[in-house]
Amino acid sequence: MESPTLFDQAVALTQASDDGFAGHTSAAYGNMVGPFGGVTAAQAIQAVLLHPKRLGDPAALTVNFCAAVADGPFSITARPARTNRSTQHWVIDMQQDGETVLTATAVTAVRRETWGATECNPPVVPAPADVNRVDGPFGVEWINRYELRFAEGGFPAQWDGAEHESSRTQLWVRDNPPRPLDFASLTAMSDIFYPRIWRRRATPVAAGTVTLSIYFHTDSDQLESMGSDYLLGQAQAQAYRNGYFDHSGQLWSETGDLLVTTHQMVYYKQ
Amino acid sequence: MESPTLFDQAVALTQASDDGFAGHTSAAYGNMVGPFGGVTAAQAIQAVLLHPKRLGDPAALTVNFCAAVADGPFSITARPARTNRSTQHWVIDMQQDGETVLTATAVTAVRRETWGATECNPPVVPAPADVNRVDGPFGVEWINRYELRFAEGGFPAQWDGAEHESSRTQLWVRDNPPRPLDFASLTAMSDIFYPRIWRRRATPVAAGTVTLSIYFHTDSDQLESMGSDYLLGQAQAQAYRNGYFDHSGQLWSETGDLLVTTHQMVYYKQ
Repeated sequence: MESPTLFDQAVALTQASDDGFAGHTSAAYGNMVGPFGGVTAAQAIQAVLLHPKRLGDPAALTVNFCAAVADGPFSITARPARTNRSTQHWVIDMQQDGETVLTATAVTAVRRETWGATECNPPVVPAPADVNRVDGPFGVEWINRYELRFAEGGFPAQWDGAEHESSRTQLWVRDNPPRPLDFASLTAMSDIFYPRIWRRRATPVAAGTVTLSIYFHTDSDQLESMGSDYLLGQAQAQAYRNGYFDHSGQLWSETGDLLVTTHQMVYYKQ
Repeated sequence: MESPTLFDQAVALTQASDDGFAGHTSAAYGNMVGPFGGVTAAQAIQAVLLHPKRLGDPAALTVNFCAAVADGPFSITARPARTNRSTQHWVIDMQQDGETVLTATAVTAVRRETWGATECNPPVVPAPADVNRVDGPFGVEWINRYELRFAEGGFPAQWDGAEHESSRTQLWVRDNPPRPLDFASLTAMSDIFYPRIWRRRATPVAAGTVTLSIYFHTDSDQLESMGSDYLLGQAQAQAYRNGYFDHSGQLWSETGDLLVTTHQMVYYKQ
């Protein structure tokens, strides 16, 4: 058995009651204020994944970031609100000092083989080895936990306020050090896209995700078969208006299977 | 004052306790089984809109359809889980006979003017008057409550099982009879797109939305200024796999402002 990585340590939870779990933020995934939201989302789905009553794999997750998560301990309640024959609906709440800092809902499902198709194909980009690896622009810690190779739309080279027509980013990403993919790490990587408003405006506007949804088009077997392959990510904003913008994103496997579609609404200051 | 429309009646709720509301399904919005999901989602946000403690306008809504809603009464709990200076996070639960049939979360926000832009522009389609109005294919009641004018991707003309490359639909839509837009009707119209798998496969596969998210890029003043204008809607699936597909959609004003971006994950049988 391999030794636990920093990601494994970050999403480690202890069951404290029927629906209750205890965890602790990870300094290794620290952001400018509090932890990287992707890891907070991963902690939320981890409570479902660890729950003894769970039915099936995650099919959808929506996480709402209600307040800055403080460095330190937290508790998570993950409650199965409705269990059907093949689907289960979860209501999740993360608290610190008796205050809600995150709410979430999730759907897990037992899936079976059906007709399938993909309409959103991966963009054509160079192979991971042919794309430069970069560090983040602000020296935040969590960026070091990922290998980021931007094929298009990397961090602004100059914060010169020049407005760009498109906020689209395309990148290869994997855990650093490489770690076998699972639903928790896939959840965290669904939030890998830095704020689209930075790409659009080349201005470091204060911004933070308010709500994030992830739809999973994969299963445990497929994730296991991928090992620690790179994922190809893409994201682009649709509208920025009066303090909030959204983006729509995708994660494909290294071999081109669409694994995740994801959306988020992001607060920005000006 | 105008007399209440069937939509007004459908989303009418009575406050029963601090966070509790009572309502009743509307036969006028009946679907094949139970009510049209868009109106159920509108009832969920209506509980927030009517709540005396609400801060600001809806910015985001995620609704999870946990079980078929039965024709008859229901209760909704809408609880402000966290109230910040300019944002508020809501947890919503709809019950029938003591069982949860819907869970939801919402974010409301007091918004102020900032820099803004749109990256997702409306498709070029003929004006509403130049696009044929159609009825639904199955004679379900709720379809009659909307004026639907498909510029692209209407209901399959023949259910011949011919596979199409794209599931994209573009349509003009408004309430029938016309009714001034508000957040409740905008929520319902965000679910106006019939299952993308029907468009893709020209096969009436059993399908039902499991989770729906709506991001609002508008406010009460803008909605009021639009009166009962048509909205331009667009939706397209991204992936269909093992019983679930997603779609990504948009609603623009008649004059081309992006009002809503929306996403859903839909169960399908085969």
